[in-house]
Amino acid sequence: MRRDKAHPLPEIRKQQKEPAVSDNTQDFNFLQGVKVVDFTQFEAGTTSTEVLAWFGAEVVKIENPGRGDPGRRLRPGKPDDDPWYFHQFNVNKKSLAINLKSPRGLEIVKDMLKQADVTVENMAPGTIERLGLDYDSVKKLNPRIIYCQIKGFGSGSPHERGLAFDMIAQAAGGPISVTGEPDRPPVKPGLSFGDTGTGMLMAATILGALHERNRTGRGRRLQVAMQDAMIHYMRTCFATMARTGNAAPRRGAKSGGGNNAPSGLYPAKGGGPNDYVYLTTSRANPEHWSRLMKLIGREDLIEDPRFATGDLRVKNEKELDAIIGEWTRQHDKREAMERLIAVGVPSGAVFDTMELQNEPSFEERGIMQSVHHHNGDYKMATWPVRIDGKTVRLKGSPALGQDSAEVLHNWLGIGEREIEKLRQEGVV
Amino acid sequence: MRRDKAHPLPEIRKQQKEPAVSDNTQDFNFLQGVKVVDFTQFEAGTTSTEVLAWFGAEVVKIENPGRGDPGRRLRPGKPDDDPWYFHQFNVNKKSLAINLKSPRGLEIVKDMLKQADVTVENMAPGTIERLGLDYDSVKKLNPRIIYCQIKGFGSGSPHERGLAFDMIAQAAGGPISVTGEPDRPPVKPGLSFGDTGTGMLMAATILGALHERNRTGRGRRLQVAMQDAMIHYMRTCFATMARTGNAAPRRGAKSGGGNNAPSGLYPAKGGGPNDYVYLTTSRANPEHWSRLMKLIGREDLIEDPRFATGDLRVKNEKELDAIIGEWTRQHDKREAMERLIAVGVPSGAVFDTMELQNEPSFEERGIMQSVHHHNGDYKMATWPVRIDGKTVRLKGSPALGQDSAEVLHNWLGIGEREIEKLRQEGVV
Repeated sequence: MRRDKAHPLPEIRKQQKEPAVSDNTQDFNFLQGVKVVDFTQFEAGTTSTEVLAWFGAEVVKIENPGRGDPGRRLRPGKPDDDPWYFHQFNVNKKSLAINLKSPRGLEIVKDMLKQADVTVENMAPGTIERLGLDYDSVKKLNPRIIYCQIKGFGSGSPHERGLAFDMIAQAAGGPISVTGEPDRPPVKPGLSFGDTGTGMLMAATILGALHERNRTGRGRRLQVAMQDAMIHYMRTCFATMARTGNAAPRRGAKSGGGNNAPSGLYPAKGGGPNDYVYLTTSRANPEHWSRLMKLIGREDLIEDPRFATGDLRVKNEKELDAIIGEWTRQHDKREAMERLIAVGVPSGAVFDTMELQNEPSFEERGIMQSVHHHNGDYKMATWPVRIDGKTVRLKGSPALGQDSAEVLHNWLGIGEREIEKLRQEGVV
Repeated sequence: MRRDKAHPLPEIRKQQKEPAVSDNTQDFNFLQGVKVVDFTQFEAGTTSTEVLAWFGAEVVKIENPGRGDPGRRLRPGKPDDDPWYFHQFNVNKKSLAINLKSPRGLEIVKDMLKQADVTVENMAPGTIERLGLDYDSVKKLNPRIIYCQIKGFGSGSPHERGLAFDMIAQAAGGPISVTGEPDRPPVKPGLSFGDTGTGMLMAATILGALHERNRTGRGRRLQVAMQDAMIHYMRTCFATMARTGNAAPRRGAKSGGGNNAPSGLYPAKGGGPNDYVYLTTSRANPEHWSRLMKLIGREDLIEDPRFATGDLRVKNEKELDAIIGEWTRQHDKREAMERLIAVGVPSGAVFDTMELQNEPSFEERGIMQSVHHHNGDYKMATWPVRIDGKTVRLKGSPALGQDSAEVLHNWLGIGEREIEKLRQEGVV
């Protein structure tokens, strides 16, 4: 396996020139004045509140003083310093470390909930209720609040007691069933969109519900199940089933519908594990086909009786794939991609995380940024939507409890002396 | 391959009892009064405006009178009636069929843009500009508008001219590099989150930008690239790279981090293509491990020197997987899932689209609904977040141009006689 080591961090830092950073990133205040009491942990919940933070809300993570979000400590055999996993899902937030099992700690958090616009939790089923912070109790404290819960399975589902992580959602919500080679066991899509994919749906709903709340003054209860969220992302697979009458199958590197050929992953020069290029020709635009054949020097095949129509190309796909593979094998994946793009054929090389991390254009465009954290600088991705050409500026993720004093003072007027007392009592 | 045929549609219709439907679904008006001029097609764009429609905005699809959204005609060898693919991404919207290449058609759409709060497009790079509806022109017409573009690659990226579909984004943004078996070529995650995943990020940003616009009166330009959007969903893979120093690898059915064992896909009774159950034990909660061993009758292994710590279980994962597989093979996947859930071990059977489609709980909870369309009724998924316990009520997707007269009248006061003239001139 041909793999290069990541750039060591100091080099990344040197590359970051201050003016470049400030030119392409900016703070956004879409949600000016919006206050979020954030009980989320790991990824599905934290990603939803991170969006609110990026959009300018004040998001206060409520964490256990001893342990914090369990996402802070996922590195086997390492001290419990904040890993990259935690950073990515918690930048631009504040951390209040407070013991919810102490009566005073719970009282303080209830006082914060009275002022909050939004609260979100993704604990195991039943946990928030045992803390006395169930929906009905919080609604009594603050009828304007948007109260949000993310669980593995929906309440009312046969699996509603089930704990969930990303891979459980990807199994029970369908993604695993459609991923893998046709005659082999399924595999898990390697990324955690079971988590972040769910978080995005909750984030959008919170943003929508706030519009209504601003008009009506009434709060809402929002609930999403990770299994249900996966179905939202599986809709083309349901479309395939509606067309064929059978469960959507696994199709390896091919796309689900099977309506278009040639389309797929082709081997590029080099032979490394990710030396492949994806190209596709869409039935909706017949020019893709002729452009591709011209590019690879096989204009003769455009009207060939084996390949003259969309249906024939699907039927004789294997033959066609072999012909295209002959061409792609002669080119580096980037070169193949660029040549295909130049003639107007949809194409993408398979880039791995290292190649993406080291691609300068992401920093130039503000998509990746170097973020300062107390234990080092990190280059990571920000919210990928550009707003008037700029991206959201990243601020480091908080150390556990780093904002406790500030938050308690600003939200509740609790002074230094009282905070010191709370510290001694183990409340914060 | 053991697969059951889908329920024929009439049976699904019979199962739908009216009161049940009206009990668990509702119209929501989060975006009351918000008007959207929608130039989107296929999936990445349409899914973003569909969220706005579900949240109560008036979303008017602008479609070519002859052809419409190319997503309407993806069924090979079938007449161009609206396929399921189109329905799913366009329910709750209106359709205005209008010729943008006619001066009068363009003028009408410009008049609509003057009133719109949001406009979204995901055409090929350069297309909207050639129509004269580029950002600067539209901003001059309406400085309050949120102007949104979804492309394959970011402007300023080396690939900015590249056309993109779901699989191109999944190649160039990383997901394919991490999906598949370790020593085999990569595969494509079988679902189209390259499209819907991007659409969700745009939807959230529009909802955020509208908050700001309501305060400041100023519009914004929003741009997202599908490649960049994929990186947002790849962040756990970047975390793995940060930990190991190597590009995130493919790990088959295992989850990316590799920090936890036992964890993975285990074969269930039946031997069908999706007769597997996922279970995982998290290092963050050591009880998962002991609960699992008790359930499968191997309490003796809890403190076994081969498996006594998280690190040892990762090291001796294969041995452990074989032991667990012996147990899972004796149980149907649903039974295994339920028994694991009952003792508090995170677990999910691999459900395929047919099993999900036929699972009654989705309809009972309002997540799936029967939708009426002029060529039949369809059971499909709605927005998966429940709001005060109810889901968004689905309305059929529009036939091409079905709302032309209504929209032209309501937005611009164009009367019947003028509409008839526009029809005769081929403008609408």
